[in-house]
Order: sequence, then C-alpha cells, then structure tokens
Amino acid sequence: MKIRSFAFLAVAMVVAALSINTSAQTADEKALQKADQDWLKVFAAEDLKKSVDFVLADGSMLAPNAPIATGHDAVGKLVAGFFALPSLKMKWTPERTQIAKSGDMGVTSGTYEMAFGGPGGITINDKGKYVTVWKKTGGVWKVWLDIFNSDLAAFGN
Amino acid sequence: MKIRSFAFLAVAMVVAALSINTSAQTADEKALQKADQDWLKVFAAEDLKKSVDFVLADGSMLAPNAPIATGHDAVGKLVAGFFALPSLKMKWTPERTQIAKSGDMGVTSGTYEMAFGGPGGITINDKGKYVTVWKKTGGVWKVWLDIFNSDLAAFGN
Repeated sequence: MKIRSFAFLAVAMVVAALSINTSAQTADEKALQKADQDWLKVFAAEDLKKSVDFVLADGSMLAPNAPIATGHDAVGKLVAGFFALPSLKMKWTPERTQIAKSGDMGVTSGTYEMAFGGPGGITINDKGKYVTVWKKTGGVWKVWLDIFNSDLAAFGN
Repeated sequence: MKIRSFAFLAVAMVVAALSINTSAQTADEKALQKADQDWLKVFAAEDLKKSVDFVLADGSMLAPNAPIATGHDAVGKLVAGFFALPSLKMKWTPERTQIAKSGDMGVTSGTYEMAFGGPGGITINDKGKYVTVWKKTGGVWKVWLDIFNSDLAAFGN
C-alpha cells in the first residue's frame, strides 16, 4: 500500500511538473507575443508607417487573393488597401508562440476576426487564422513572413 | 579614368560577393529544402499515411476555407479531402529557406500550382503561396505549421 501511494505521488508530481512546463511561458515568448499584439495595435489604429515598420526590409506579407508583397513599398500598398476598407475592425490573437533555442527566429500563430462595411451598408465579417515568422535584429522582433487565410467558404461556393 | 574603372570594379566585386552570399546554401538549408520537396513527393503520389507522417503529432495545417486542423486525425481528414479531388496535380517550390542558428526550427516558403477536375470535365487551376514552419526532432525535420492561400481573386468576385 505504501509503495502504491508512493507510485501515485510520483506520477502526480510528474503530471504537475509537465503541466507547469507547458503552461509557463518564457520571458522571450512573452516578449514575442507582445510584439505580435503591438503590431495589432498600430494596425488597428491604421497607422501605415508604424504598421510597415514592423516588417523587415526583405519581409513579406502573403495575403489571400494577391501575389506575395515583399519589401516596404509592396507591403505598404497592401496594408493601405486594408486601411481603405470602410469601418475596418481587425483583431488577431496569438494562440501559439514558439522561439528557436538560439532566440533569433520565432513564430506566432492564431486566429483573426475582421469586419468591414460592404455595399449597401451591410457589414462583412470574416474570421480565419495566421502564421507570422519573426526575426530578432538588434534586440527587436521584426516580421519576416506574415500569411493568413479565411476559415469561411469561398464566396460563391 | 583609372579611378572610375577602379570604382566600377569595386562595385562589381561587391555585387558578385552579394550574389554568392545569397545563392550559397548551407548543408542544413539544403536538407530542409529537400524535406520540403520530399513532402511534395508523397503528397503528389497521394500517399496519405506518408503525407500525414511528415507532420508533428501537435502539428497543424491551416488550409483556406476550413478551420485549423491540428493533430494527425484532423490533418489526415484534410489531406484526404485534397486527394479526393479528381485528377489532382500539385506542385510547390520553396523560394526561401531559413533555419534558426540553433538548428531546431526552420521555415520554407514559396509558391504552389495546383490543378484538378471540376464539373463538366473542366480543369480548375489555382496558384498561390505557402509558409511551412518545421521543427527538427531526432535529427529529422517535421512540419509544425503549414499554411497557404491563393493568389487568385475569390470566386464570384
């Protein structure tokens, strides 16, 4: 009986240790998650310059229904296209954050919700998911690749 | 005149050095690019088991017009849906390959071309882009996140 209790306790301790390990975020992961949400803040405020400055000079946005936009000019045009949508509301939530052991590359991934005004005063709602690949340069996380797509069925299907 | 020639030569040397630098791939990058294309091979052969085995147990496919598929069961259902498309032809080409300094995380990104049979014997062509985030476990590159979207305008637009 004592051996059994001990075995149970050992298992419980391992389970507890594992759950601590998976739920605890490193300081680096928190910083990257903050960068992800800081980018959202300037995007939601429709600050074009600050939104583009989050992206590396050789970084790309891979938006649906458009070719790859690489570099600040192309990314700026793409983001300006978003900001031109009437009554745009954008929100994204990182659900997974992972950083390479070397700390030079990281990924945030999660879901987004978006709404904007369509023709005739209707509101068009969209939701989907994204992956953002970040690189750390000079101690700052910058976007190297950003890609997203909708969960919803393609229009007309 | 001599100074001008020298300046020209210097610029030419810098350009040559840059082009060598960008074209040279490390052995690790080549291995990751090979993993990317090995995955394509089993996908193009419509080998469901091998296609799913490339993905980590907690890995996800983030396909357009569908929720995130996480884990082998969900990923298997998604991939089986692709393989059910008549006369499927799939090709993707990694144009950018990057590995963290620690060698535990890497990314391939590029373009895809896809064709399948639609109603009435027509062929539906699609092209787009993708980002795949890989993790190295036990010396083998496995897919953690795979996401893609079409360059083409949404249907009905």
